[in-house]
Order: sequence, then structure tokens, then C-alpha cells
Amino acid sequence: MKKSLGAKTIVYPTPVFIVGTFDQLGQPNAAAAAWGGICCSRPPCVAVSFRKATYTYKNIVARQAFTINIPSEAYVKEADYFGLASGANENKFLTTGLTPTKSELVDAPFVAEFPFALECRLIHTTEIGLHTQFIGEVLDIKADESVLGEDGTLDIERVKPFMFAPDSRAYYGLGKCLGPAFSIGKGIGGRA
Amino acid sequence: MKKSLGAKTIVYPTPVFIVGTFDQLGQPNAAAAAWGGICCSRPPCVAVSFRKATYTYKNIVARQAFTINIPSEAYVKEADYFGLASGANENKFLTTGLTPTKSELVDAPFVAEFPFALECRLIHTTEIGLHTQFIGEVLDIKADESVLGEDGTLDIERVKPFMFAPDSRAYYGLGKCLGPAFSIGKGIGGRA
Repeated sequence: MKKSLGAKTIVYPTPVFIVGTFDQLGQPNAAAAAWGGICCSRPPCVAVSFRKATYTYKNIVARQAFTINIPSEAYVKEADYFGLASGANENKFLTTGLTPTKSELVDAPFVAEFPFALECRLIHTTEIGLHTQFIGEVLDIKADESVLGEDGTLDIERVKPFMFAPDSRAYYGLGKCLGPAFSIGKGIGGRA
Repeated sequence: MKKSLGAKTIVYPTPVFIVGTFDQLGQPNAAAAAWGGICCSRPPCVAVSFRKATYTYKNIVARQAFTINIPSEAYVKEADYFGLASGANENKFLTTGLTPTKSELVDAPFVAEFPFALECRLIHTTEIGLHTQFIGEVLDIKADESVLGEDGTLDIERVKPFMFAPDSRAYYGLGKCLGPAFSIGKGIGGRA
């Protein structure tokens, strides 16, 4: 017998996306977003939601582009700050000392110090309610060599990402590997 | 200087949503989905994407409802199996021995043994490309008492959720708490 908790926005894990945009004057901004995720394999697309009142909402509408930056555990304070401050009042790159690098593919900056970033072109906008969902097509991923494995692909254990727990409002790091996907379930139902 | 990895669908963390549906004959199904996330606070909404070829796609279109079940680490094999097998060929509840419980709020079943589930009513469908994105309004969350903290809210450390790494195709558990959100970034930029 399960207990009713009410209509809430709780799933685990929830990401900590740092969304890079330019404002109408060309000033770079970075904002934290936990409402989002990959939403299509072909074309490769990622969704992220913002309230209309945010600086990033206006920037995405104006520039039709954004980056999704994945911070490593070492930058959890900066990531939290990106969710506390508004680009309307502060140049968040200046206050954090982090470096905005202009994407050559889309009209948005990425965070140079973060291990990797998705460069996204806005392809769809859905008005849901308090939040508007932006779907971006991923044109490229830019990653630091230091987080790539020997085969040249991203190594999550080098990236050291973290997640957000929406209800307890806390950040959690990466735990241990539990096994390979599309594999460890094969023993079930005679699928040995 | 960052390296180009190409246009790919990699973010961390990516969830492992187990999506519960009924088919047109009323048989319960459960499928794994990593492409999704919360997308709006008011109304509370969650997005999840499926290919048209999947059994779950047809079920959501027919029933206009689904549940999002969050598995605990103890069920990583069953969760993997839910992504390997298709409800078109197998009754996945029977093969896993897990129990479908009919939601009283929406026309979909949840997985009784998993720690908590979101009961969702389909409110929006977006055709993106290979994947179709379904947005569901969360009408309620049902949770086991055993994963609630002393204040009656979900305790992520009792749920023991896990995540999926899309590129290395592996599952990872929950790591250690890194600190409170909307708080640990306050020292930056003179926000002490």
C-alpha cells in the first residue's frame, strides 16, 4: 500500500544543466536548470524549461540558441550560484571568474572550465504553464581532453557530474557503477 | 581548447524511468526510458520520449496516460530488462514477477515493488523526429512509507535511485551529498 504525496515534481535523478546564452547586448549569461533532459535521438535533441520571468527565457527567444554545460563536482558552488543570481542584475561570468567561450556553431557561449557542453539550436517551443519548454537540436558536443577515455569518448568517472534532488533541495555526486545497460537484465525471463 | 565529439545525445545524469501503461486489451506493460525529465512546476509535468515503433508509444496514444516509476538500485536488473524486452512479445510483469497495480487516478498501472511512482495524464505530444515526446501532468505521487523521511517527504538516500550513462551504456548509483541547493553558492560574488 503506497502513500499519496500529492501532485509534485519529484524524479531522481534530476540534472543540473548550466544553460549558456547571450543577451540582446551580447553579454554572456549562465543559468542553472533542473527541468530538462534528452528528448530525441535523431535529430539529437535536448529539452530544458524556463519560466518567462527569467533572463535566460528572453535570451533563448531572442537568440534562438543555447548551450547545455555539464558541471563537474568541483564546480557545485558555481552551479548553485548560477541558479541563485539573475543575469538581469549581474554578469555571472565576472562574479564567478569563469570564462565564456563563444560557440562557433550557435549564437551562445559555453563555460570553458566545465568538462563538456552541448551546442544547441532552438527547434521547438512548448508553452506548458509556469514553464516554457525549449527543445534544442544538438549540433555538436565540445569536451575537454581530460575527461575523455582512451577510446576518445566521454568518461563519466572523469567528468564527475552531480545531480539535484528537487524535494530535499540538495546535490548528490556520482556513485559506483552498477553494471552494463542492455545486458544485466538478460537473465530475466529466460533471456540468458 | 575543447575537442569536438559530434552531434550526440549525452548529458549526465540521465534518468531510468520505468513507464507503466496498459495496452488496448488491458495488459499492463513497463518500459525503460532514459529520454525524459521534469518540464514544468505548475501544473507539475514530466516529459518522456518514445519511438513510434514501441509498444509503449501505442499504449500512451490509446490510453492517454502513463506512470513514471523510479526504481531503486535493488531492481537495476529488472529495469534493464524492461528496456530489453517488448510488451508486444512478452508480459514483462509476469517474467519479472513484479506486480502491476492499477492507478485509481489515471488509466495506467504502476510497479508495486518500486519505491515511488508519478501518475500522469497525457496533456501534450510533440513529434520531434525518431522520438515523440509525451508530456504528462502529474496528478499524484504514490510512495512506499519505507522511503519517506521523518517529515513524511521522500528521502533520496532511502530510495537509492540510479542513473544511466548514455555513451558508455552503464548504470551508476547515488553518490554522497555535496551540499544544500540554493545555498552553497551564496558566498560567490559577495552573496555571503
